[in-house]
This record gives sequence, C-alpha cells and structure tokens, in this order.
Amino acid sequence: MIRIGIYGYGNLGRGVECAIKQNDDMELVAVFTRRDPKTVKLIDESVSVYHVDDALKMQDKIDVMILCGGSATDLPVQTPYLAKYFNVVDSFDTHAKIPEHFENVDKAARETNHTGMISVGWDPGMFSLNRMLAGTILVDGCDYTFWGRGVSQGHSDAIRRIEGVKNAKQYTVPVESALQAVRNGENPQLTTREKHTRECYVVANEGADLARIENEIKTMPNYFADYDTTVNFISEEEFNENHAGIPHGGVVIRSGKTGKSLENNHIIEYKITLDSNPEFTASVIVAYARATYKLANEGAYGCKTVFDVAPAHLSAKSGEELRKSLL
Amino acid sequence: MIRIGIYGYGNLGRGVECAIKQNDDMELVAVFTRRDPKTVKLIDESVSVYHVDDALKMQDKIDVMILCGGSATDLPVQTPYLAKYFNVVDSFDTHAKIPEHFENVDKAARETNHTGMISVGWDPGMFSLNRMLAGTILVDGCDYTFWGRGVSQGHSDAIRRIEGVKNAKQYTVPVESALQAVRNGENPQLTTREKHTRECYVVANEGADLARIENEIKTMPNYFADYDTTVNFISEEEFNENHAGIPHGGVVIRSGKTGKSLENNHIIEYKITLDSNPEFTASVIVAYARATYKLANEGAYGCKTVFDVAPAHLSAKSGEELRKSLL
Repeated sequence: MIRIGIYGYGNLGRGVECAIKQNDDMELVAVFTRRDPKTVKLIDESVSVYHVDDALKMQDKIDVMILCGGSATDLPVQTPYLAKYFNVVDSFDTHAKIPEHFENVDKAARETNHTGMISVGWDPGMFSLNRMLAGTILVDGCDYTFWGRGVSQGHSDAIRRIEGVKNAKQYTVPVESALQAVRNGENPQLTTREKHTRECYVVANEGADLARIENEIKTMPNYFADYDTTVNFISEEEFNENHAGIPHGGVVIRSGKTGKSLENNHIIEYKITLDSNPEFTASVIVAYARATYKLANEGAYGCKTVFDVAPAHLSAKSGEELRKSLL
Repeated sequence: MIRIGIYGYGNLGRGVECAIKQNDDMELVAVFTRRDPKTVKLIDESVSVYHVDDALKMQDKIDVMILCGGSATDLPVQTPYLAKYFNVVDSFDTHAKIPEHFENVDKAARETNHTGMISVGWDPGMFSLNRMLAGTILVDGCDYTFWGRGVSQGHSDAIRRIEGVKNAKQYTVPVESALQAVRNGENPQLTTREKHTRECYVVANEGADLARIENEIKTMPNYFADYDTTVNFISEEEFNENHAGIPHGGVVIRSGKTGKSLENNHIIEYKITLDSNPEFTASVIVAYARATYKLANEGAYGCKTVFDVAPAHLSAKSGEELRKSLL
C-alpha cells in the first residue's frame, strides 16, 4: 500500500480523499490543516486530522504528501519546504513561475533524496502533456487550447467583490465557430475575444443598481474587458438549483502538416468534459502520486513534471498486464 | 544528428522519409529493400538504397533502424533479427500477438545491448497510450474506441479479390448516435453493428454482375457480414478523383465517475483526423525513434513500448525548454 498524506483540505483535498478510495493500492494516512483539526470533517471520519505544525512527526508514516494549497501564496513556500521531508506532489498552476518553482523544489528534494512532482492536474498537467506529445508528432503545425464550458473561480470571485452582488458564477465558453475553424485545419489566428466568451450568472442584493453592476463587470480590466461578456441576473433559488456545481473542461488541438510538400493535414484533439473540476484534478494528482512513489523507490530524486513520467509508472498494473490488455 | 535507416520502402517507408525531413536533429542514412535497389526511387535521390542483405554492413553508421514491413509475416521475423544488430522501432499491430513479439524482441535486444521499440503508431500507439492514461485517471469507467472515418486497407483488398471488381476502397465509419451516447456519459453497451458502418466504393469491370458483387461483399464473413454495409458502384474516373487518398482517424473515449458516491461523470476524449494514415503513423514512429536513441544512450536496453517512454524523451527540446514553453 502507498501511504498518502493530504496537506490542505479544501475542494481539492476532498477530491483527493475521494480519489484515493478508488485506488486499491493506496491508503489515506492523515490530513493536515492550518485550521483547528477538530473543526475539519473528513468524508472518512476514521482518518486522523492533524495541524500542519505536526506534519514532520509523520515522516516515516507517509510515502507521498499531496499538497492541496493555492498557487498564489501557499505552494511556492510549502512545496520546497515539504520536499525536504517527504516525496511531494502539487498542482502549482502559475504557468509563468513554473521554472522558478521547479528550481526551488529540485534543490530541496535533491538535498534530502526525495522526489517532488509539480504542476500536476489538467492545465498544467494533461493539457501540457498533450500539447507536447502532439507537437513532437506534428512538427510543422499550430497549437490551440480552448477552456470551458466551465466555471472560472477567479472570475466568479471578481464579480462577487462588486458592490451589490450577493453571489455569482462565471462560465468561460469557447466560441464554437473558432473551434470549428481549428478543427477544419484552417489554422486561424485568433484574438482573445475570438476564442472565448464569458457568461455571468449574478444574484444581486435587493434594490441594487443592476445596470451599474453589469457595466462594472463588462468593463473590468484583465477579467472581462477583452471578452464578449453576457450578464444574467437570477434569483438565489435559481442560482442554487442550476449553478451549484464546479463543471469545467476544454480542448487542446494540434493542427499540422506532413508529406513531401507538406500537402497533408492532420488534427490531434484532446478534450475533457468534467462534472467536477477539483475531483478530476484530484484524480490526475493521485495517479501521479503513484508515479512519484515509484520514482522515489528507483532513486529518481529531484523535481519532476508530467514530461518526465513514463506512462506505465502511473498505473497499478504491471508492464505485462498493460501490454496484454491496453496496447 | 540521429542517423536513421529505413528497412522496407512502401507507403510507411515513404512517410518515414518525409517525417525525418521535418526533424532537424535526424538524418536518413540509408534505405534497405528486398527489391533490386536500382528500381527503388526515393523522394530524396541523394540517399543510398541498399539490398536488405547488406544491412549488417551499416551497423556503425545507423543509430536507429526503422522497420516498415507488415505485421503478418515481416515484423515477427525482422524485428527480433535486426534487434541483435541495431536499435530498432517497428509498428507491429497484431494486438493479440504483442506479448509474444515483445518477448522475442526483448531477448534479442538485451543479449546485444540494444533498445527495441515495438508497436508504435496510432493503434497500437497513441490510442493505447491514451486508453492507459485515461484509465489511470478515471479508475471507475468504460473505454470506447471508434475508428474512422477512414480507409481500411484490409477490407479494400478483400473487395478487390471478388470476381468482376476492378478497384475498390472501403471506409470504416463510426455510428454518430453511438458516439454521441458515449460522449453523453451514457456508457452504452454496443455491438459491432452499432459502433461502425462500412461504406464501399467499387469500380466494376464492364458487364460484371453488380448484384452478385454487392451480395458477395455484404455477406462476406468477418469482413462485412456483421456490419451495415453500403456498396456504391462508381466510374474509374470518379474513383481516381475522390478516393485516391488514404485518410483515417478515430477516437478513444474514457467515461468515468468520481466523488463521494461516484456522483460526478467525466469524459476524456482523444481524437485524430488524418489526411494520410501512413504519414501520420510515420510521424509517430520518428518521434519514438528519437526516444529509442536516447534510451539506448542511457543504457535502457531491451524491448520497450509507448508505455515505457517518458514524454520528454520524444522531444528534441531540453527539459528546461519544455517546462518553460509547454507546461
């Protein structure tokens, strides 16, 4: 059994707890929280909850620690720190800062013979992997990534900060005609506005100025100003009924050419449609936790990413089983 | 530069020649043929063509030999034989015999410290990889593979063997409603007939009995009897105009559940749409030839499959570049 710890217990941590239950070769040993452990209720109440300050005492009881904190302030500190004491996996998703994060985790993990897997999930993660694989196959080509239809937590938060807004959810939606042009091999050059629209569902406080709220959303720099945005005011009842979930998804497309005169076109498409963004991310992370465990056992220390993991390392099955049943 | 040899020069060999030209870190050193080398015309006439009997003389000039023969009789013999003298890549695609082929290549390659990569292409190959990856992420779920719309060489050949048939092409076509049910997460149980239909375009000899030909096609055991088959008789002119290419494609879908009570559904879909089946297969093979070269240099000898290759090994870019630009 691979003994797992969860460090941080929000939506992602809960997803990891669920995913571990689906994998017979793993067990959840402990959850670590910054809150008072007594206030944290796990799905499986037989698992112990500890304060994060007690994590190091569990070094010899945990094979892989899965970090479920945020990328803005938690993971840049937590992952290098914990990589000194544990094999770790995180879902660090600030794309521009990945090289720096890699260096920090690599140094910490190598000094103490640990393996640290970073930026696991779907983007970065499975989308990165598919961009890379498709690019090595279709060398002459273009990459496209569309996100959605799905909930952007950051954009929903931004709407909720507007005065008079009680609750809000924002869906990122790919523009169907742009997607179709890419699938047709037309290799279009697409602006931000041409790739995605933003749909907002807003519950306003009674008596709030709806026109002002709508205008504040649509003109918000970085978040909405560069997009075609629609704002729908709905009742709290409708909000709870139709917008309670955290669905997401997206597609990575490589369109490329081969042949004597590059006369033949090919499309490779990787598409995901998710009822629950955090549970899917958690499921990817748990598979990579298995790979992290195997790599550490082989002495492959230091920082790793999805690019460094041979697919067989993700599976609980033997090479022989995989070749027989899946090749 | 990675020095490549091509062993067998048909559609696939020609595709490999084209693909090598698209990869700056590779050069084609020689092509080996069972025909009279003087009769074989390469796209690049500056590359030497030798008889297969002269292959072993080139051992120190070739880093990876790419085998482009057929799976029925060529590769079961050629791959283990050549793995004694070269690092090799093949596209062996008789799924049921892969374990046996693996053992034979593994033994030959290990004895002489070579690396042999087998069953590379799209199915087996990229489809296998995606079946496996999706299955490790969505542990509780169902796999679906649909092939087409595309040309089945074997089925086209079978039609051409019927008396009175001058030329023929058969397209395998996924049933759209079945595909939609899978994408909707309905997890349908599908029979052979419910998954694919077969479209035939036939040029008949003058005066041939069309009703008999159509009946012979539709009732042919294994090939057509279990499918809804349509037969279209067309002129040779129309055949040459509209059915000269070798397009193919298909999709691998994993539909799986997560959550406390497995209440959330997710769909992972990997889809390819190819103008030229052999050129795409060749492009996959060439990327895996690079990985074979790297593995051999690291001392990772023996037989390998797509499951054993860390994605970064397929790329000409460094780990640092990949993390910066694609993660």
